Amino acid sequence: MYPRAVEALIASLSRLPGVGRKTAERLALHLVRAPAEEARSLVAALTAVRQQVRACSLCRNLADRDPCAICADPGRDDSLLCVVESSADLAALEAAGAYKGRYFVLAGALAPLEGVGPDNLHLDELVKRVRQGGVKEVIIATNPTVEGEATADLIVRTLEPSQARLTRLGYGVPVGGDLKYMDGLTLARSLASRQKVD
Amino acid sequence: MYPRAVEALIASLSRLPGVGRKTAERLALHLVRAPAEEARSLVAALTAVRQQVRACSLCRNLADRDPCAICADPGRDDSLLCVVESSADLAALEAAGAYKGRYFVLAGALAPLEGVGPDNLHLDELVKRVRQGGVKEVIIATNPTVEGEATADLIVRTLEPSQARLTRLGYGVPVGGDLKYMDGLTLARSLASRQKVD
Repeated sequence: MYPRAVEALIASLSRLPGVGRKTAERLALHLVRAPAEEARSLVAALTAVRQQVRACSLCRNLADRDPCAICADPGRDDSLLCVVESSADLAALEAAGAYKGRYFVLAGALAPLEGVGPDNLHLDELVKRVRQGGVKEVIIATNPTVEGEATADLIVRTLEPSQARLTRLGYGVPVGGDLKYMDGLTLARSLASRQKVD
Repeated sequence: MYPRAVEALIASLSRLPGVGRKTAERLALHLVRAPAEEARSLVAALTAVRQQVRACSLCRNLADRDPCAICADPGRDDSLLCVVESSADLAALEAAGAYKGRYFVLAGALAPLEGVGPDNLHLDELVKRVRQGGVKEVIIATNPTVEGEATADLIVRTLEPSQARLTRLGYGVPVGGDLKYMDGLTLARSLASRQKVD
């Protein structure tokens, strides 16, 4: 129905998460008609992101240099390591401004049905990171979901042999929620009330 | 919080219709991590669309050649001209398969609050298209919304001096709806029951 180039763009946009055929059509028609500068800046931004952004070799956060800005910051507390599921969760915690330690970003949470098992989360790199020394407490900040809790249990079992104290984000985070959609106050409270894992 | 390239991509994605900051973040993080081929095909599709797609000089539909495939099709009825607000509406009517005439695609509907007045819809080109002769009936298929009805009234006033019969899509299209989200049967029925405008 649409010219072939428009259909190709709709197909590409449909592969984005949460974007169905109708949304992809709406976005594609917008992009066809938008000012040239808008389309150009999207292409440039997407190209730049793929060229410049990598995972930090220390914390696996998205970074345009290695180590990333947080790992390279001498002002942060080396004795605290906060483990999150994603860069988006890290961004939410940073925006809350209540944490001044280091991070480790997992490759998501356990999701057996989607083929994400213990071997896919980069736990070996987490163990290595903790072993490097200096880490006195690992704050497990996986999401308060079934997958996040299972991942937290796995982290506890994996890190138990280490000397580090293991804690979990405290109450304040509602069960079933997602860190990256949470307000800063709730996140700050949950950091302050973090609990040692038995 | 994110690397600068990621922030730039989020900003670009936020300019898309219906995409807020959180959605843009989710899309950007997906695009950073997606297989290289997926990002590349999106860039290629977007670039191709901007290079290849233009408005057809006869009907103003999106087209990769001029005249477009519908205007160039000798098998369609030259005596019928269906006026729609957008290429997406045209696509919905074509998918219904109940119409074999020609089209004219307006640049949207009247929206005074958004600065879209009678001069922005390309009505002069519609008049020219009708004057070219051969058009016996103009089917006004603007959306059954306040803006669409106002646009239909404007088209009626604009085309009254012409010899063409003016009709409106018939009942079957629910008021407040949007053609591009309508099922083919409803669209086919509304075409069959179209009414002459007094």
